[in-house]
Amino acid sequence: MESPLTAMESAPRQGDEGAPDAWIEFDAELIDALDGVVPGARIVILSWLDRADRAVLSVHPRGDTSRPQAGVFATRSPHRPNPIGLHPVEVLEVDGPRIRVAGLEALDGTPVLDVKPLLEGEICER
Amino acid sequence: MESPLTAMESAPRQGDEGAPDAWIEFDAELIDALDGVVPGARIVILSWLDRADRAVLSVHPRGDTSRPQAGVFATRSPHRPNPIGLHPVEVLEVDGPRIRVAGLEALDGTPVLDVKPLLEGEICER
Repeated sequence: MESPLTAMESAPRQGDEGAPDAWIEFDAELIDALDGVVPGARIVILSWLDRADRAVLSVHPRGDTSRPQAGVFATRSPHRPNPIGLHPVEVLEVDGPRIRVAGLEALDGTPVLDVKPLLEGEICER
Repeated sequence: MESPLTAMESAPRQGDEGAPDAWIEFDAELIDALDGVVPGARIVILSWLDRADRAVLSVHPRGDTSRPQAGVFATRSPHRPNPIGLHPVEVLEVDGPRIRVAGLEALDGTPVLDVKPLLEGEICER
């Protein structure tokens, strides 16, 4: 991913909380896998949150220390044993093996693991 | 995951298409990460689809050979470069490091990568 976000402290917690547009560049040999990914499509990007702390098992939800700690599997904290990010976004533009998406809350350089279409009605607007 | 599904041919394509209940057993040292995962919670399980073919880049959507092939990133095919499954399910029961969930369309023995709560309104009923 190419994103203007470079520091964890500046990244919004969810994509609908002011996240910027971002480009995703795929390996050229994967271009056939992008056939059918078109502008307007709603997709889920799965990312590897490579700056997360994989030893963390409990956190204060949303970083609010006035709230009791919860297990990371009950939160969306990036810090967790396998730090995989889920990002529902809309495709804005496709340019060969690169796609531009709206509202992606991940840091510049974050590796992308997978891309899937959202199923009809699966994720609603908030 | 412990599931009665053992063959890819018998697994439903999505969890709301007749998938059975399943138990998920976590490593005992991860039990603190499950704090707050309770019966009735709606979660997303991320799995590693270890019987998928990672060389596949294009498929006939839903296995229907009368439909034109599409790139795997535009489909939910299990066959893809990084075969990660996304399973939105409801928690039925929690027993130490094991949880029972409803409607999981994954094969017996499939490894679990991560568990996340569904955000309020994020995934609607179909």
